[in-house]
Amino acid sequence: MLGRIHHVAYIVADIDAGLDRLGATFGLTPAVREVMAEQGVEAVLCGPPGGAVELIRPLDPEGAIARFLESRGEGLHHVAFEVDDLAAALEDLRGRGAELIDERPRPGLGGHLVAFVHPSSAGGVLTELVQAEPGRGH
Amino acid sequence: MLGRIHHVAYIVADIDAGLDRLGATFGLTPAVREVMAEQGVEAVLCGPPGGAVELIRPLDPEGAIARFLESRGEGLHHVAFEVDDLAAALEDLRGRGAELIDERPRPGLGGHLVAFVHPSSAGGVLTELVQAEPGRGH
Repeated sequence: MLGRIHHVAYIVADIDAGLDRLGATFGLTPAVREVMAEQGVEAVLCGPPGGAVELIRPLDPEGAIARFLESRGEGLHHVAFEVDDLAAALEDLRGRGAELIDERPRPGLGGHLVAFVHPSSAGGVLTELVQAEPGRGH
Repeated sequence: MLGRIHHVAYIVADIDAGLDRLGATFGLTPAVREVMAEQGVEAVLCGPPGGAVELIRPLDPEGAIARFLESRGEGLHHVAFEVDDLAAALEDLRGRGAELIDERPRPGLGGHLVAFVHPSSAGGVLTELVQAEPGRGH
């Protein structure tokens, strides 16, 4: 079901400082940057497909990302895998009894359709599924 | 410098239980499984190249992995990126002032050459570099 890893997401307090650090160390450069008001975050995707790092900073001081930052500090937040057909993957996961955070595909960073799977069904790790190419296999 | 993500690594208390869960949810199956005595861990790599999850369990109750499990519970431990030439990548990172955990390539899971970069130089995330194909670009 899972394709390659689409990106890994890191929580940071300051996106520009995070970009400066990743740029200085690994030469990663930003590809897409968006304020996602509904999620209460600003996010930027750096690096090439299949090797991308997403940096996320909280905009909502009461939100889940702000709480993560406060309790655990900066670090890994979730892993995103590509799937060819997200609606079919969610249907399959429901059939397997997986706990879904998003019951249906929703728009994510860069206009991709995404859905999150609860860590309890994914090896203790918050897991995002990304349909990289809307409407067809990639 | 960085290529695609080679794998993401999750710490688990019990590898077989972890494999069962990831198998039940995502159909991931083990490709390589090794006791790495020098690191005090047992590790298994599941899933295809570019989309692989490594599960790690501590064998040494005093080691870093056991301490991670005790303090943070099961979850994401590190992210591994492919590089074409690991020795050259480490030289480049030294030139950029990055803090390296491994100054030289060493053997990792599955016989790949690997080296770790300290989280302080990698966006707060423990980062592994993997030379997927020894002696040549991949």
